[in-house]
Amino acid sequence: MKAKSIQDRYPDEFAHCYGCGRLNRKGLHIKSYPEDDECVCRYTPEPHHTGGVPGYAYGGFIASLIDCHSSATASAAKLRQSGPSAGDIAPPRFVAASLKVDFLRPTPVDKVLELRGKVEEMKGRKVIVAVTLSVDGEVCARGESVLIEMPPRTE
Amino acid sequence: MKAKSIQDRYPDEFAHCYGCGRLNRKGLHIKSYPEDDECVCRYTPEPHHTGGVPGYAYGGFIASLIDCHSSATASAAKLRQSGPSAGDIAPPRFVAASLKVDFLRPTPVDKVLELRGKVEEMKGRKVIVAVTLSVDGEVCARGESVLIEMPPRTE
Repeated sequence: MKAKSIQDRYPDEFAHCYGCGRLNRKGLHIKSYPEDDECVCRYTPEPHHTGGVPGYAYGGFIASLIDCHSSATASAAKLRQSGPSAGDIAPPRFVAASLKVDFLRPTPVDKVLELRGKVEEMKGRKVIVAVTLSVDGEVCARGESVLIEMPPRTE
Repeated sequence: MKAKSIQDRYPDEFAHCYGCGRLNRKGLHIKSYPEDDECVCRYTPEPHHTGGVPGYAYGGFIASLIDCHSSATASAAKLRQSGPSAGDIAPPRFVAASLKVDFLRPTPVDKVLELRGKVEEMKGRKVIVAVTLSVDGEVCARGESVLIEMPPRTE
């Protein structure tokens, strides 16, 4: 059985994101999976996710993938700290304080985009994540996000 | 008669962007208008453009608005350099080399978001644009984009 993505384990009240919320019916449904000390997302864009020129992905779409995948990477890293019980608890939810994307080369829309996220720094509620977006092994974009862990909601 | 937006004047071959292309039927149709030495976009999100928590805008959506509006701001600035003929020629098309967004406070989705872009630096084909995103006069996000002018397409 395939493990659930980080986003599919977020508590319901945090699962409405246009980028990755399982409860957002019109959203992109970005899904990220822990893999060793990284977090990985593979996404094939729709043909309409192009930038100005057909065939290549829109910068805002690339930023969206990096935004959600960064949050999930931070969440997965925090989960890992919980040790053996990590599989049983809800992943903590992060929001971005800042997002930086470098567009290194045009990103095709008709291929699988592979995002790999890695924690660069973790201090209290703040986590800094670096992401690469590659196609066929070639890095097309790099991102860095500063994320803040949201406090759990109380009823 | 209201002036056309910068995006509605892009040449057809550059008008397919998911964020702002008039020829992308599924896109966001972001529109930017020159106003003195700035460029202004007013956009009301759809309810599904939320982040994890309902009611507040998704970071990737905010990045998308800033991405397209930055390109249009650079384009409008270049057009202004053309002097009196600026109204008759197609705006040059820019692509982002990098995009940085600082999310300062939650951005509501049920209000008009006002983006104001201003050129910080222009050197040859490279333009740096700063953008503020405000709601009811309060700045919710700031962006900075480094943009490169695309060469005109030859047949």
